[in-house]
Amino acid sequence: MINNFKNSKINVDALFLGPKSENAVFFKEMMEYSVSEHMHWRSSYHPEDPDLISTVDRYAPEYRDTLYRTEGILNQLSSKLKTTSVPWFSPRYMGHMNADTLMISNLAYVMAMMYNPNNCAQESSPTTTVLEIEAGLDLCAMFGYDVQHAWGHITSGGTVANYEGLWVARNIKTLPLAIMQHPKSQYLLKDKTEKELLNLSVSAVLDLIDELKKQQIFEEIRYLTCRGVGIEQGKLGKLLVPQSKHYSWMKAMDILGLGQQNIVQLPVDASYRTDVRKMRETVFTLIEQGEPILAVVAVVGTTETGAIDNVREVIELRRECEQRFGVSFYVHIDAAYAGYACAMFRDEENQFMEYENLLQCYHSEGLFPENMVWPKRDVYESFKALSQADSITVDPHKVGFIPYAAGAICMKDKRIVDLVSYHAAYVFEEVQEKQRKTEKTQNVLLGSSIMEGSKAGATAAAVWAAHRLVPLNVLGYGKVIAAGVITANWMIDKINQCEPFIIEERQFSIIAMPTPDFHMINFMFREIGNTSLEKQNQLNKRLYELCSYAAGRSYSNDFLTSSTSLTYEEYGDNPLNLCRDAQFSDSEWHKVRSIYVLRAAVMTHCLRDRAHFETYWAELKNIFEDKLQQLINEENKLNHSNYKINI
Amino acid sequence: MINNFKNSKINVDALFLGPKSENAVFFKEMMEYSVSEHMHWRSSYHPEDPDLISTVDRYAPEYRDTLYRTEGILNQLSSKLKTTSVPWFSPRYMGHMNADTLMISNLAYVMAMMYNPNNCAQESSPTTTVLEIEAGLDLCAMFGYDVQHAWGHITSGGTVANYEGLWVARNIKTLPLAIMQHPKSQYLLKDKTEKELLNLSVSAVLDLIDELKKQQIFEEIRYLTCRGVGIEQGKLGKLLVPQSKHYSWMKAMDILGLGQQNIVQLPVDASYRTDVRKMRETVFTLIEQGEPILAVVAVVGTTETGAIDNVREVIELRRECEQRFGVSFYVHIDAAYAGYACAMFRDEENQFMEYENLLQCYHSEGLFPENMVWPKRDVYESFKALSQADSITVDPHKVGFIPYAAGAICMKDKRIVDLVSYHAAYVFEEVQEKQRKTEKTQNVLLGSSIMEGSKAGATAAAVWAAHRLVPLNVLGYGKVIAAGVITANWMIDKINQCEPFIIEERQFSIIAMPTPDFHMINFMFREIGNTSLEKQNQLNKRLYELCSYAAGRSYSNDFLTSSTSLTYEEYGDNPLNLCRDAQFSDSEWHKVRSIYVLRAAVMTHCLRDRAHFETYWAELKNIFEDKLQQLINEENKLNHSNYKINI
Repeated sequence: MINNFKNSKINVDALFLGPKSENAVFFKEMMEYSVSEHMHWRSSYHPEDPDLISTVDRYAPEYRDTLYRTEGILNQLSSKLKTTSVPWFSPRYMGHMNADTLMISNLAYVMAMMYNPNNCAQESSPTTTVLEIEAGLDLCAMFGYDVQHAWGHITSGGTVANYEGLWVARNIKTLPLAIMQHPKSQYLLKDKTEKELLNLSVSAVLDLIDELKKQQIFEEIRYLTCRGVGIEQGKLGKLLVPQSKHYSWMKAMDILGLGQQNIVQLPVDASYRTDVRKMRETVFTLIEQGEPILAVVAVVGTTETGAIDNVREVIELRRECEQRFGVSFYVHIDAAYAGYACAMFRDEENQFMEYENLLQCYHSEGLFPENMVWPKRDVYESFKALSQADSITVDPHKVGFIPYAAGAICMKDKRIVDLVSYHAAYVFEEVQEKQRKTEKTQNVLLGSSIMEGSKAGATAAAVWAAHRLVPLNVLGYGKVIAAGVITANWMIDKINQCEPFIIEERQFSIIAMPTPDFHMINFMFREIGNTSLEKQNQLNKRLYELCSYAAGRSYSNDFLTSSTSLTYEEYGDNPLNLCRDAQFSDSEWHKVRSIYVLRAAVMTHCLRDRAHFETYWAELKNIFEDKLQQLINEENKLNHSNYKINI
Repeated sequence: MINNFKNSKINVDALFLGPKSENAVFFKEMMEYSVSEHMHWRSSYHPEDPDLISTVDRYAPEYRDTLYRTEGILNQLSSKLKTTSVPWFSPRYMGHMNADTLMISNLAYVMAMMYNPNNCAQESSPTTTVLEIEAGLDLCAMFGYDVQHAWGHITSGGTVANYEGLWVARNIKTLPLAIMQHPKSQYLLKDKTEKELLNLSVSAVLDLIDELKKQQIFEEIRYLTCRGVGIEQGKLGKLLVPQSKHYSWMKAMDILGLGQQNIVQLPVDASYRTDVRKMRETVFTLIEQGEPILAVVAVVGTTETGAIDNVREVIELRRECEQRFGVSFYVHIDAAYAGYACAMFRDEENQFMEYENLLQCYHSEGLFPENMVWPKRDVYESFKALSQADSITVDPHKVGFIPYAAGAICMKDKRIVDLVSYHAAYVFEEVQEKQRKTEKTQNVLLGSSIMEGSKAGATAAAVWAAHRLVPLNVLGYGKVIAAGVITANWMIDKINQCEPFIIEERQFSIIAMPTPDFHMINFMFREIGNTSLEKQNQLNKRLYELCSYAAGRSYSNDFLTSSTSLTYEEYGDNPLNLCRDAQFSDSEWHKVRSIYVLRAAVMTHCLRDRAHFETYWAELKNIFEDKLQQLINEENKLNHSNYKINI
C-alpha cells in the first residue's frame, strides 16, 4: 500500500478544502484527529497525577460563565470574519497572491500548534526544529543547491528573508577589511588594495573564514566587521535592484544602516524585467568609478507584473566582471512570489529538465494542453540559473499555498551563517553535521543563526507536511502551480479576443498586457473614444473599487481583484507600449506618466479544466458588464444631480 | 445575560484546555464551530456557482489516494509530535516561559486561519488588521500610555520588537543632524552644537517633525537621516543595556549597523537587576566624555533570573540629565517576559492602583493568601514608571499565554513611526484618525509602518480574543499570572525548608536563589561535603540533563526544567552570594566564575490551590530523590567500569 502511494499521482482538487468546502468531511475528520490526538497525549501523560480540576469545579457558575464568555467572543470573532473577510478560496477572487491553501498545511499547523513548539531553540521544539531544517533543505534542493553545503530556514515572510539576504551580503563585504585590521590575519590579503578587498568573490571570502577558523581567530576578526564596529557610511558600495522591486528593499537599506541613497535602481525593459543592457552599463560604470557593488538583486516574479528577471544574465555578468576586472559581488534573488515555480522544472529525481523534455512532459502529463507553451525560453534559463545565486527568498505562503506567515530564505553556502550567527561559530555546523550523521540532533539554536528569535514551530510543520505530500517537482507542486498558469494564459487569450462591452451606447474594450512570465495578469478597461489617460485611470480606479473590499462586503461581490499603477518612476517609459495598445497618444503618457491597471495573480486550481474555464469566463463577462453598468449609473446619477443643481 | 458576563468573574481553570484535557468537550465543540462556520461561509458563497469538483471526481482513485496520503503524513506528523514534544501544559514542566495556552487564543487562531488574512495590508485582512490595532492599543493602555497618541502592534516575537525599538531610537537620533543639512530647516536648530543635536529629547525631536510637516519638507529631511544616508560609524553614541540582557540586543546592534562595540553593558547588583548607582556613573561619565547616549534599555523580567530593572530610576536619571546637562536619551523597556504582569497593577477601570490598595485587593480577591506579599515595592514602582518609557517590548506568547509566534511593541508617541515608515508620512495617521472617528478603516498598511511585512492575521485574532476574554487588569490576566507567582513563592519556601536528600549515605541539599521579582526561580542541588564548584556545576548539569529533553522522550520524564549558567561575564561577582549560600569558598568562585543553576519559569495555573501544591511538592521531592539516585547509579557504574579497566 505504501509503495502504491509513491507511484500514485497527486490529484490537485484533493489538496484543498475546495470552493464549496467539497472536502469538508475529510477536513473535519482530520481536524478532529489532529486535536484529539493531542488531547489524548495530555490525558495519558502521567495518568497517576491527581485531578487538579475536578468535575465539580467545572460545574461552578464562574466556570460555566467563563466558558460561555469564551463562546460569545468566538461568536463575535466569527461574525466579524464572515462579514469582512475576502474569499481567497473562490475563483471569483483574482487579485493578490492568494488562493485556497493546502488542507494538509492547515491541519499540520493546528496539530503542531496544540503542542506549541518554538523553533527558536530545539529545546523548545524538539520535533519542529528538525522539520524546519528539512523543509529548508527541500527548498534548497528545488533551487539546485547542494544540500550538503546549503541551508534554508523559514522566516515570517519575504520581507524578513530579503533583510537576511542583505544582512549576510553586508557582513561578508566587511570581512576582508576586518582581516586587514588584525595583525595575525593581514598576511592573508596583503598587497590587496582597499578596492580589491571590497570586490572579492563570496566564495573567496568564505574560504578565508575557514582559514581564520583554523587559526582560531575567526571570532576576533568577526568582531572587527561591521557587526562589531558598525557601518562606515558609503563604504560598502551600491545595492543594485530593479525599479520593479518590492518596497522591502527600501526598508532593508534603512534597517541595515546602509542608507537608501545607496540603492541604484536598475531600469526595466519593455517586458518589465530588469533591462540587461542597462544593468551591464551600470555595473561597468560603477566598476570604472571604483565604487564597490554590495549586491545585485534579481526579482523572480515581481509583485506588480510577475516579471521574471534574467537571472542567467546576472550570473554571467558577475563571471564576466570577475574575469575582466577582478570585481565580484553578491547575488540575491527575490523569488518570494515565483520561487516555488522552480518545482515545475524538476523531474521526480529532482533533475532540472531539458527545455524540450519539459514542454513534452507538461503535455504528456496533462499540465498544459498541446497548444500552450510555457515557459518562455529565457524564463526557463532564469530558473536554471538560480542554483548560482548566493541566496534566494521564497514565500511558502504565496505559491507554496501555506497559510500565513511563512517566508523562507535559502543560502547556497552555509558557511556564510557564521557572519551573522550570534553563537560561537562552530556550534551550528557541528549540530547539522551530527544531524546528518545520526539522524539525531542536539540543541540546534535556530534563533542564534537567523534574524528572528521566537517562531512558531507549527509553521515548520505546515511547510514540511506540504512538501511531503506535494513534492517539489513537476508532478507535485508543478501540477498545482500549472493550474494557475494555464488559467492566466486562457484569461489573457479571452481578454484579447473579447468584443467590446456596449452599455447605453457607450463602448468599453478590455485590454491585457502581453502574456506574463508567470501567472500575474494586468488588464484594464477602456472606453472607446476616450483619449484622456487621466479619465482612463479614473475609470479603472473606480472599477477596482467596485471589484474590491472597498465596495463593501467582499462576500456579496461577484468578482474581486487588486490593482496597481504603472508609473514612470518605477518603469520609465515602458508603460508607453500599453498606452499605445490602448490607443492613447504618447503625449498623454508623457503628461500623466502613470497608468492604472487591474492586477490579478491567477492562482486558483479550479479552472484548469477547459469547460469549467469557459463557463467561468462567460459569467465573468456578465460581471464585467454589470460593473460597467453600475459605473455608468453612478455617472448618470452624478450628472443628473449636477444638472439639478445647475437649474 | 450579556451584562452578567461583564460582572462575572474569570475562572482561571476554564481558560485552558487543562493538564488532563479537562475542557476537551468544550474545546472540541468550539473547534468544530470555528471550522464549520468557515466551511459554511464557503459553501454559501455564490451558491449559484457550478460544481467545479463533483462527487464523481472525488471518487476517482487518484483523488482518494491523495486524501489517504494526506492522512498518512498527518499520522506521521502526529507520531513525531507525540514522541518528542514537551508537555508545557503540565505542572511537571517548569522551565522556559511556557505553560498551557489559552483555549480562546488557539480557537481564535484556527478560526481566523481558515480565512487566512495577511495583516501586511488591510486589503488582505479587512477584519484582522483592525483587531491588531485594537490589541496593540490594549497593551498600550495596560502600560499607561495615552491611547490617543500611542500605538502598538504585533511582531513575530520579542526579538523583532527589540529591533524595532532600537530602529526608531536610531533614526530619531539622526533627525536633528539631518535638519541641519537642509537650508530650509536649519533655522529650527541654529546655534546648536553637534553635541546638543545628538542629545535632544525624544519629544523635542518629535515636535520638530510636526514643524517639518507643516513646511512640507519632512520627507526630504527624513531622507537625510541615517535612513537615507546610512550610519556614520560611531557617531550615534552608546546603547546602554544591562549585562543580563537577552542576546537579541547583540543581534540588534549588528543588524542595525550600529556595531556591537557600541553597546555599554551595565553591571547588575546583587539582586541581578541593573546596578542603579553604576548606571548613573556610566551615564555621567559618557556625558562628561561628550559621548551621546543612543538609548538606555531596562529589562523587565530578565530571561535568566526574572529580575525587574528599576525603571523609575532610569526615567528619573533621564530627567536629571535633561535638567543638569541638557542631555536626553531614548528609553526602551524589554518587557518581553514580564510585561503582561502590568495587568496585575490595574483595576477594572484601568487605573494603576496604589500600593496598599493593591496588596489588599490581591488578598480580598483571593489572588494571594494573607501571608504573601507581592510585589516588592521597587518592582511596583518599576511597573508604574513604564508609562514614561518611549517604547516597550512585550510578548503575548510568553505571559500572555498565546501560542507562538506573537510578540509586540508599544510606542508612547506614534509620531515616531514616521521615522521608519515607508509610505508618505501622513497616510498612517490619517487612517488611524479615520478609524477612531468612523469605526471604519480605509486601507491601513501595517507592513509599511513596521519592520516585518506579511504577517498572520490569525495571530492578531488570537491576541485580540484573549484580551476580550481576559481583561488586562487584576481580575483578568492578573488572576492568571498570580497563579504562577504564588506557586513560585511557595516553591522557594519549600526549597528553603527542605531537608537534605540522603542517597546511599551521601547527602544533597537544595538551594534556591532569594525570592525573585517575578516568577522565575533559580535553584540547585549541592552535595554536602563537596567543596569544588566545578563538581557542583557538573552535578547540576547532569541533573538538568536528566530533567530535560536531553534524557530522551520528555513525555516519560517525571519532571522537566531548564538551566543556565550565571557567569562572571554577565553578572560580575554577584553570583558569589549564591556560592556563599551554598558554602563554597570565595576562591572557588574566583577560579570557576560560573555557577550552573536549574531555572524554572513557574507559569502553571494549576497549583494555586494550597492543597494541590502540597501534593505536588511531595511528589516532586520523590522525583528529585529518584533523579539523584539515578545520577549516583551512573556514577557507581562508571566507577565500577573504571575499576574493571584498572585491574
